Amino acid sequence: MTERLVLHEFAPSGNCYKVRLTAAIVGQHLERREYDIMNGETRTPEFLAKVNSNGRIPVLQVGHRFIPESNAACYFIGEGSKLVPTDQFDHSDMLRWMFWEQYSHEPNIATLRYWKMWIGFDNLSDVQRLEVPVKRQAGEAALKLMDDHLKGREWLVGTMISLADICLFAYTHVAGDADFQLQRFPRVADWIERMKGQPRYIALNA
Amino acid sequence: MTERLVLHEFAPSGNCYKVRLTAAIVGQHLERREYDIMNGETRTPEFLAKVNSNGRIPVLQVGHRFIPESNAACYFIGEGSKLVPTDQFDHSDMLRWMFWEQYSHEPNIATLRYWKMWIGFDNLSDVQRLEVPVKRQAGEAALKLMDDHLKGREWLVGTMISLADICLFAYTHVAGDADFQLQRFPRVADWIERMKGQPRYIALNA
Repeated sequence: MTERLVLHEFAPSGNCYKVRLTAAIVGQHLERREYDIMNGETRTPEFLAKVNSNGRIPVLQVGHRFIPESNAACYFIGEGSKLVPTDQFDHSDMLRWMFWEQYSHEPNIATLRYWKMWIGFDNLSDVQRLEVPVKRQAGEAALKLMDDHLKGREWLVGTMISLADICLFAYTHVAGDADFQLQRFPRVADWIERMKGQPRYIALNA
Repeated sequence: MTERLVLHEFAPSGNCYKVRLTAAIVGQHLERREYDIMNGETRTPEFLAKVNSNGRIPVLQVGHRFIPESNAACYFIGEGSKLVPTDQFDHSDMLRWMFWEQYSHEPNIATLRYWKMWIGFDNLSDVQRLEVPVKRQAGEAALKLMDDHLKGREWLVGTMISLADICLFAYTHVAGDADFQLQRFPRVADWIERMKGQPRYIALNA
Protein backbone atom coordinates (compact mmCIF):
# COMPACT_ATOMS: atom_id res chain seq x y z
CA MET A 1 0.00 0.00 0.00
CA THR A 2 1.68 3.19 -1.10
CA GLU A 3 -1.10 5.70 -0.57
CA ARG A 4 -1.35 7.61 2.67
CA LEU A 5 -4.06 6.30 5.01
CA VAL A 6 -5.87 8.72 7.31
CA LEU A 7 -8.55 7.62 9.77
CA HIS A 8 -11.21 10.28 10.29
CA GLU A 9 -12.59 9.38 13.68
CA PHE A 10 -14.05 9.92 17.12
CA ALA A 11 -11.60 7.86 19.12
CA PRO A 12 -13.95 6.40 21.81
CA SER A 13 -16.24 4.97 19.12
CA GLY A 14 -15.96 1.21 18.83
CA ASN A 15 -16.49 1.56 15.08
CA CYS A 16 -13.34 3.69 14.88
CA TYR A 17 -11.42 1.38 17.22
CA LYS A 18 -12.11 -1.57 14.87
CA VAL A 19 -10.18 0.19 12.15
CA ARG A 20 -7.24 1.04 14.44
CA LEU A 21 -7.13 -2.52 15.81
CA THR A 22 -7.10 -4.00 12.30
CA ALA A 23 -4.27 -1.66 11.31
CA ALA A 24 -2.30 -2.46 14.48
CA ILE A 25 -2.57 -6.23 14.00
CA VAL A 26 -1.48 -6.11 10.37
CA GLY A 27 1.21 -3.49 11.07
CA GLN A 28 -0.28 -0.70 8.93
CA HIS A 29 0.43 2.88 9.95
CA LEU A 30 -2.61 5.17 10.14
CA GLU A 31 -2.66 8.92 10.50
CA ARG A 32 -5.54 10.04 12.71
CA ARG A 33 -7.86 13.05 12.47
CA GLU A 34 -10.21 13.51 15.45
CA TYR A 35 -13.70 15.06 15.21
CA ASP A 36 -15.91 16.37 18.00
CA ILE A 37 -19.10 14.57 17.03
CA MET A 38 -20.99 16.09 19.97
CA ASN A 39 -20.44 19.51 18.40
CA GLY A 40 -21.46 18.52 14.89
CA GLU A 41 -18.00 18.43 13.33
CA THR A 42 -19.07 15.54 11.07
CA ARG A 43 -22.17 17.39 9.86
CA THR A 44 -20.46 20.48 8.45
CA PRO A 45 -21.00 21.22 4.73
CA GLU A 46 -17.30 20.57 4.13
CA PHE A 47 -17.34 17.16 5.84
CA LEU A 48 -20.54 16.13 4.03
CA ALA A 49 -19.19 17.27 0.65
CA LYS A 50 -15.70 15.85 0.97
CA VAL A 51 -15.43 13.07 3.56
CA ASN A 52 -18.81 11.35 3.96
CA SER A 53 -22.22 12.51 2.74
CA ASN A 54 -23.69 10.30 5.46
CA GLY A 55 -22.18 12.56 8.18
CA ARG A 56 -20.65 9.70 10.11
CA ILE A 57 -17.28 8.49 11.22
CA PRO A 58 -15.14 6.45 10.86
CA VAL A 59 -14.04 7.19 7.32
CA LEU A 60 -10.79 5.83 5.93
CA GLN A 61 -9.04 8.23 3.60
CA VAL A 62 -6.93 6.49 0.95
CA GLY A 63 -4.91 9.14 -0.82
CA HIS A 64 -7.60 11.57 -1.98
CA ARG A 65 -10.46 9.07 -1.83
CA PHE A 66 -12.66 8.07 1.11
CA ILE A 67 -14.16 4.81 2.41
CA PRO A 68 -16.99 5.26 4.94
CA GLU A 69 -18.43 2.35 6.95
CA SER A 70 -16.18 0.86 9.60
CA ASN A 71 -16.28 -2.72 8.36
CA ALA A 72 -15.44 -1.69 4.80
CA ALA A 73 -12.47 0.32 6.13
CA CYS A 74 -11.31 -2.74 8.09
CA TYR A 75 -11.57 -4.82 4.92
CA PHE A 76 -9.47 -2.36 2.93
CA ILE A 77 -6.71 -2.49 5.53
CA GLY A 78 -6.94 -6.22 6.20
CA GLU A 79 -7.13 -7.41 2.58
CA GLY A 80 -4.28 -9.75 1.74
CA SER A 81 -3.43 -10.34 5.42
CA LYS A 82 -4.09 -13.38 7.61
CA LEU A 83 -7.22 -11.57 8.85
CA VAL A 84 -9.06 -12.26 5.56
CA PRO A 85 -9.54 -15.97 4.80
CA THR A 86 -8.73 -17.10 1.27
CA ASP A 87 -11.13 -20.06 1.38
CA GLN A 88 -14.33 -19.05 -0.44
CA PHE A 89 -16.73 -20.32 2.21
CA ASP A 90 -14.78 -18.89 5.13
CA HIS A 91 -14.47 -15.54 3.37
CA SER A 92 -18.23 -15.22 2.91
CA ASP A 93 -18.76 -16.53 6.43
CA MET A 94 -16.50 -13.74 7.71
CA LEU A 95 -18.62 -11.19 5.82
CA ARG A 96 -21.72 -12.85 7.27
CA TRP A 97 -20.55 -12.03 10.80
CA MET A 98 -19.58 -8.49 9.77
CA PHE A 99 -23.05 -7.84 8.27
CA TRP A 100 -24.65 -9.43 11.32
CA GLU A 101 -22.60 -7.10 13.52
CA GLN A 102 -23.96 -4.03 11.74
CA TYR A 103 -27.56 -5.25 11.71
CA SER A 104 -28.07 -7.23 14.92
CA HIS A 105 -25.28 -6.23 17.33
CA GLU A 106 -24.14 -2.63 16.81
CA PRO A 107 -27.62 -1.00 16.72
CA ASN A 108 -28.37 -2.56 20.09
CA ILE A 109 -25.17 -2.75 22.13
CA ALA A 110 -23.28 0.20 20.65
CA THR A 111 -26.36 2.44 20.61
CA LEU A 112 -27.15 1.74 24.28
CA ARG A 113 -23.50 2.46 25.14
CA TYR A 114 -23.65 5.72 23.22
CA TRP A 115 -26.94 6.73 24.82
CA LYS A 116 -25.64 5.96 28.30
CA MET A 117 -22.14 7.44 28.02
CA TRP A 118 -22.65 10.45 25.72
CA ILE A 119 -26.35 11.33 25.60
CA GLY A 120 -27.52 10.18 29.02
CA PHE A 121 -30.61 8.02 29.48
CA ASP A 122 -32.43 11.02 30.97
CA ASN A 123 -31.96 13.00 27.77
CA LEU A 124 -33.42 10.48 25.35
CA SER A 125 -36.44 11.24 23.14
CA ASP A 126 -39.72 9.45 23.85
CA VAL A 127 -39.16 6.93 21.09
CA GLN A 128 -35.57 6.27 22.21
CA ARG A 129 -36.75 5.71 25.77
CA LEU A 130 -39.19 3.05 24.55
CA GLU A 131 -36.45 1.52 22.44
CA VAL A 132 -34.14 0.94 25.42
CA PRO A 133 -35.74 -2.35 26.59
CA VAL A 134 -36.10 -3.53 22.97
CA LYS A 135 -32.40 -2.89 22.34
CA ARG A 136 -31.48 -4.42 25.70
CA GLN A 137 -33.28 -7.65 24.80
CA ALA A 138 -31.86 -7.73 21.25
CA GLY A 139 -28.35 -7.03 22.59
CA GLU A 140 -28.67 -9.92 25.06
CA ALA A 141 -29.82 -12.16 22.21
CA ALA A 142 -26.80 -11.11 20.13
CA LEU A 143 -24.40 -11.95 22.97
CA LYS A 144 -26.12 -15.29 23.51
CA LEU A 145 -25.89 -16.10 19.81
CA MET A 146 -22.14 -15.42 19.91
CA ASP A 147 -21.75 -17.44 23.10
CA ASP A 148 -23.55 -20.42 21.56
CA HIS A 149 -21.55 -20.15 18.36
CA LEU A 150 -18.23 -20.07 20.27
CA LYS A 151 -18.96 -23.45 21.85
CA GLY A 152 -15.96 -25.57 20.89
CA ARG A 153 -14.49 -22.76 18.77
CA GLU A 154 -11.66 -20.31 19.36
CA TRP A 155 -12.69 -17.83 16.64
CA LEU A 156 -15.92 -16.92 14.90
CA VAL A 157 -14.87 -18.19 11.46
CA GLY A 158 -12.86 -21.31 10.71
CA THR A 159 -9.87 -21.87 13.00
CA MET A 160 -8.13 -18.48 12.70
CA ILE A 161 -8.71 -14.94 13.89
CA SER A 162 -10.34 -12.85 11.13
CA LEU A 163 -11.90 -9.43 10.62
CA ALA A 164 -15.13 -10.94 11.96
CA ASP A 165 -13.50 -11.25 15.40
CA ILE A 166 -12.11 -7.72 15.30
CA CYS A 167 -15.37 -6.13 14.13
CA LEU A 168 -17.38 -7.94 16.80
CA PHE A 169 -14.79 -7.47 19.54
CA ALA A 170 -14.98 -3.67 19.31
CA TYR A 171 -18.37 -3.25 20.99
CA THR A 172 -18.60 -6.63 22.70
CA HIS A 173 -15.64 -6.08 25.02
CA VAL A 174 -17.12 -2.78 26.25
CA ALA A 175 -20.72 -4.02 26.45
CA GLY A 176 -20.43 -3.57 30.22
CA ASP A 177 -20.41 0.19 29.56
CA ALA A 178 -24.06 -0.29 28.56
CA ASP A 179 -24.80 -2.53 31.56
CA PHE A 180 -24.63 -5.87 29.73
CA GLN A 181 -23.30 -8.61 32.03
CA LEU A 182 -20.48 -10.27 30.11
CA GLN A 183 -19.91 -12.85 32.85
CA ARG A 184 -23.23 -14.40 31.79
CA PHE A 185 -21.59 -15.28 28.47
CA PRO A 186 -18.48 -17.23 29.51
CA ARG A 187 -17.36 -18.27 26.01
CA VAL A 188 -17.58 -14.67 24.90
CA ALA A 189 -15.56 -13.65 27.96
CA ASP A 190 -12.89 -16.26 27.08
CA TRP A 191 -12.83 -15.06 23.46
CA ILE A 192 -12.34 -11.47 24.67
CA GLU A 193 -9.25 -12.60 26.63
CA ARG A 194 -8.01 -14.47 23.54
CA MET A 195 -8.34 -11.27 21.51
CA LYS A 196 -6.46 -9.27 24.13
CA GLY A 197 -3.63 -11.80 23.97
CA GLN A 198 -3.09 -11.33 20.23
CA PRO A 199 0.32 -10.04 19.11
CA ARG A 200 0.18 -6.27 18.48
CA TYR A 201 -3.21 -5.95 20.23
CA ILE A 202 -4.01 -2.37 21.19
CA ALA A 203 -6.67 -1.22 23.64
CA LEU A 204 -9.62 1.04 22.78
CA ASN A 205 -8.09 3.91 24.74
CA ALA A 206 -4.52 3.34 23.51
CA MET B 1 -18.79 -24.25 -7.89
CA THR B 2 -19.54 -27.93 -7.52
CA GLU B 3 -21.56 -27.93 -4.31
CA ARG B 4 -25.33 -27.74 -4.44
CA LEU B 5 -26.70 -24.31 -3.58
CA VAL B 6 -30.07 -24.02 -1.84
CA LEU B 7 -31.67 -20.70 -0.96
CA HIS B 8 -33.75 -20.89 2.22
CA GLU B 9 -36.14 -18.01 1.77
CA PHE B 10 -39.40 -16.11 2.01
CA ALA B 11 -39.76 -15.13 -1.64
CA PRO B 12 -41.36 -11.63 -1.27
CA SER B 13 -38.46 -10.50 0.97
CA GLY B 14 -36.11 -8.11 -0.79
CA ASN B 15 -33.23 -9.68 1.12
CA CYS B 16 -34.05 -13.04 -0.51
CA TYR B 17 -34.59 -11.44 -3.91
CA LYS B 18 -31.05 -9.99 -3.80
CA VAL B 19 -29.64 -13.48 -3.67
CA ARG B 20 -31.83 -14.72 -6.54
CA LEU B 21 -30.99 -11.67 -8.66
CA THR B 22 -27.26 -12.15 -8.10
CA ALA B 23 -27.54 -15.81 -9.07
CA ALA B 24 -29.59 -14.96 -12.18
CA ILE B 25 -27.13 -12.34 -13.41
CA VAL B 26 -24.11 -14.60 -12.98
CA GLY B 27 -25.98 -17.65 -14.32
CA GLN B 28 -25.83 -19.72 -11.13
CA HIS B 29 -28.63 -22.23 -10.53
CA LEU B 30 -30.24 -22.08 -7.08
CA GLU B 31 -32.61 -24.56 -5.54
CA ARG B 32 -35.25 -22.81 -3.45
CA ARG B 33 -36.87 -23.77 -0.14
CA GLU B 34 -39.75 -21.53 0.96
CA TYR B 35 -40.63 -20.79 4.61
CA ASP B 36 -43.81 -19.29 6.02
CA ILE B 37 -42.21 -16.66 8.25
CA MET B 38 -45.63 -15.41 9.43
CA ASN B 39 -46.18 -18.84 11.00
CA GLY B 40 -42.78 -19.07 12.66
CA GLU B 41 -41.21 -21.60 10.31
CA THR B 42 -37.81 -19.94 10.73
CA ARG B 43 -38.04 -20.06 14.54
CA THR B 44 -38.47 -23.81 14.96
CA PRO B 45 -35.83 -25.64 17.04
CA GLU B 46 -34.74 -27.47 13.90
CA PHE B 47 -34.27 -24.30 11.85
CA LEU B 48 -32.39 -22.59 14.69
CA ALA B 49 -30.13 -25.59 15.25
CA LYS B 50 -29.38 -26.40 11.65
CA VAL B 51 -29.98 -23.44 9.30
CA ASN B 52 -29.58 -20.17 11.22
CA SER B 53 -29.43 -19.64 14.97
CA ASN B 54 -30.56 -16.07 14.27
CA GLY B 55 -33.97 -17.33 13.05
CA ARG B 56 -33.91 -15.32 9.85
CA ILE B 57 -33.93 -15.84 6.13
CA PRO B 58 -32.36 -15.74 3.60
CA VAL B 59 -29.76 -18.40 4.27
CA LEU B 60 -27.66 -19.83 1.47
CA GLN B 61 -26.94 -23.52 1.88
CA VAL B 62 -23.63 -24.60 0.32
CA GLY B 63 -23.51 -28.38 0.42
CA HIS B 64 -24.06 -29.12 4.11
CA ARG B 65 -22.99 -25.68 5.34
CA PHE B 66 -25.01 -22.47 5.70
CA ILE B 67 -24.38 -18.76 5.07
CA PRO B 68 -26.90 -16.42 6.73
CA GLU B 69 -27.06 -12.68 5.94
CA SER B 70 -28.28 -11.73 2.49
CA ASN B 71 -25.28 -9.66 1.46
CA ALA B 72 -22.83 -12.41 2.46
CA ALA B 73 -24.86 -14.89 0.41
CA CYS B 74 -24.71 -12.52 -2.58
CA TYR B 75 -20.95 -12.27 -2.14
CA PHE B 76 -20.53 -16.04 -2.11
CA ILE B 77 -22.45 -16.37 -5.38
CA GLY B 78 -20.94 -13.29 -7.03
CA GLU B 79 -17.29 -13.91 -6.11
CA GLY B 80 -15.12 -14.18 -9.19
CA SER B 81 -17.80 -12.64 -11.47
CA LYS B 82 -17.98 -9.17 -13.00
CA LEU B 83 -20.20 -8.19 -10.05
CA VAL B 84 -17.21 -8.09 -7.66
CA PRO B 85 -14.56 -5.52 -8.61
CA THR B 86 -10.96 -6.70 -8.50
CA ASP B 87 -9.55 -3.20 -7.84
CA GLN B 88 -8.80 -2.93 -4.11
CA PHE B 89 -10.45 0.45 -3.60
CA ASP B 90 -13.55 -0.39 -5.63
CA HIS B 91 -13.91 -3.70 -3.82
CA SER B 92 -13.95 -2.05 -0.39
CA ASP B 93 -16.18 0.71 -1.77
CA MET B 94 -18.64 -1.98 -2.89
CA LEU B 95 -18.63 -3.43 0.63
CA ARG B 96 -19.12 0.09 2.00
CA TRP B 97 -22.44 0.39 0.13
CA MET B 98 -23.45 -3.11 1.21
CA PHE B 99 -22.79 -2.30 4.90
CA TRP B 100 -24.56 1.03 4.46
CA GLU B 101 -27.53 -0.81 2.99
CA GLN B 102 -27.86 -3.01 6.07
CA TYR B 103 -27.36 -0.16 8.55
CA SER B 104 -28.98 2.92 6.97
CA HIS B 105 -31.37 1.71 4.24
CA GLU B 106 -32.84 -1.71 5.04
CA PRO B 107 -33.89 -0.99 8.66
CA ASN B 108 -35.87 2.00 7.41
CA ILE B 109 -37.26 1.25 3.96
CA ALA B 110 -37.55 -2.54 4.20
CA THR B 111 -38.94 -2.44 7.71
CA LEU B 112 -41.66 0.08 6.79
CA ARG B 113 -42.53 -2.08 3.77
CA TYR B 114 -42.77 -5.15 5.99
CA TRP B 115 -44.85 -3.36 8.57
CA LYS B 116 -47.24 -2.02 5.94
CA MET B 117 -47.61 -5.14 3.79
CA TRP B 118 -47.39 -7.99 6.30
CA ILE B 119 -48.02 -6.61 9.82
CA GLY B 120 -50.30 -3.67 9.08
CA PHE B 121 -49.67 -0.23 10.55
CA ASP B 122 -52.71 -0.70 12.83
CA ASN B 123 -51.11 -3.75 14.42
CA LEU B 124 -47.79 -2.20 15.40
CA SER B 125 -46.57 -2.02 19.00
CA ASP B 126 -46.37 1.37 20.71
CA VAL B 127 -42.64 1.65 20.12
CA GLN B 128 -42.99 0.63 16.47
CA ARG B 129 -45.72 3.23 15.96
CA LEU B 130 -43.38 5.94 17.25
CA GLU B 131 -40.59 4.59 15.06
CA VAL B 132 -42.61 5.01 11.84
CA PRO B 133 -41.85 8.74 11.33
CA VAL B 134 -38.23 8.22 12.39
CA LYS B 135 -37.82 5.45 9.84
CA ARG B 136 -39.70 7.47 7.23
CA GLN B 137 -37.26 10.36 7.63
CA ALA B 138 -34.20 8.11 7.67
CA GLY B 139 -35.47 6.25 4.60
CA GLU B 140 -35.93 9.54 2.74
CA ALA B 141 -32.41 10.55 3.73
CA ALA B 142 -31.07 7.23 2.41
CA LEU B 143 -32.81 7.72 -0.96
CA LYS B 144 -31.50 11.29 -1.15
CA LEU B 145 -27.97 10.14 -0.40
CA MET B 146 -28.20 7.60 -3.23
CA ASP B 147 -29.69 10.21 -5.57
CA ASP B 148 -26.88 12.66 -4.82
CA HIS B 149 -24.25 9.97 -5.23
CA LEU B 150 -25.66 8.89 -8.61
CA LYS B 151 -25.15 12.39 -10.03
CA GLY B 152 -22.98 11.81 -13.09
CA ARG B 153 -22.68 8.09 -12.35
CA GLU B 154 -24.36 5.03 -13.84
CA TRP B 155 -23.55 2.68 -10.98
CA LEU B 156 -22.81 3.05 -7.27
CA VAL B 157 -19.19 1.89 -7.48
CA GLY B 158 -16.70 2.67 -10.26
CA THR B 159 -18.11 2.39 -13.78
CA MET B 160 -19.62 -1.11 -13.65
CA ILE B 161 -22.60 -2.79 -12.05
CA SER B 162 -21.59 -4.56 -8.82
CA LEU B 163 -23.15 -6.33 -5.87
CA ALA B 164 -23.63 -2.88 -4.32
CA ASP B 165 -26.22 -2.09 -7.01
CA ILE B 166 -27.99 -5.41 -6.60
CA CYS B 167 -28.12 -5.24 -2.81
CA LEU B 168 -29.46 -1.68 -2.87
CA PHE B 169 -31.84 -2.28 -5.77
CA ALA B 170 -33.74 -4.96 -3.89
CA TYR B 171 -35.60 -2.67 -1.48
CA THR B 172 -35.16 0.60 -3.37
CA HIS B 173 -37.21 -0.42 -6.39
CA VAL B 174 -40.14 -1.41 -4.18
CA ALA B 175 -39.85 1.57 -1.80
CA GLY B 176 -43.21 2.70 -3.17
CA ASP B 177 -44.75 -0.27 -1.33
CA ALA B 178 -43.88 1.65 1.85
CA ASP B 179 -45.17 4.97 0.44
CA PHE B 180 -41.80 6.45 -0.50
CA GLN B 181 -42.10 8.65 -3.61
CA LEU B 182 -39.40 7.44 -5.98
CA GLN B 183 -40.21 10.14 -8.55
CA ARG B 184 -38.70 12.62 -6.09
CA PHE B 185 -35.33 10.89 -6.65
CA PRO B 186 -34.92 11.01 -10.44
CA ARG B 187 -31.38 9.62 -10.60
CA VAL B 188 -32.46 6.70 -8.45
CA ALA B 189 -35.43 6.19 -10.78
CA ASP B 190 -33.09 6.16 -13.80
CA TRP B 191 -30.73 3.72 -12.06
CA ILE B 192 -33.70 1.43 -11.34
CA GLU B 193 -34.51 1.36 -15.07
CA ARG B 194 -30.84 0.67 -15.83
CA MET B 195 -30.94 -2.30 -13.46
CA LYS B 196 -34.11 -3.65 -15.06
CA GLY B 197 -32.39 -3.50 -18.45
CA GLN B 198 -29.51 -5.73 -17.39
CA PRO B 199 -29.09 -9.02 -19.26
CA ARG B 200 -30.64 -11.90 -17.29
CA TYR B 201 -32.49 -9.49 -14.97
CA ILE B 202 -35.33 -11.18 -13.08
CA ALA B 203 -38.17 -9.47 -11.24
CA LEU B 204 -38.90 -9.80 -7.51
CA ASN B 205 -42.02 -11.86 -8.22
CA ALA B 206 -40.45 -13.96 -11.00
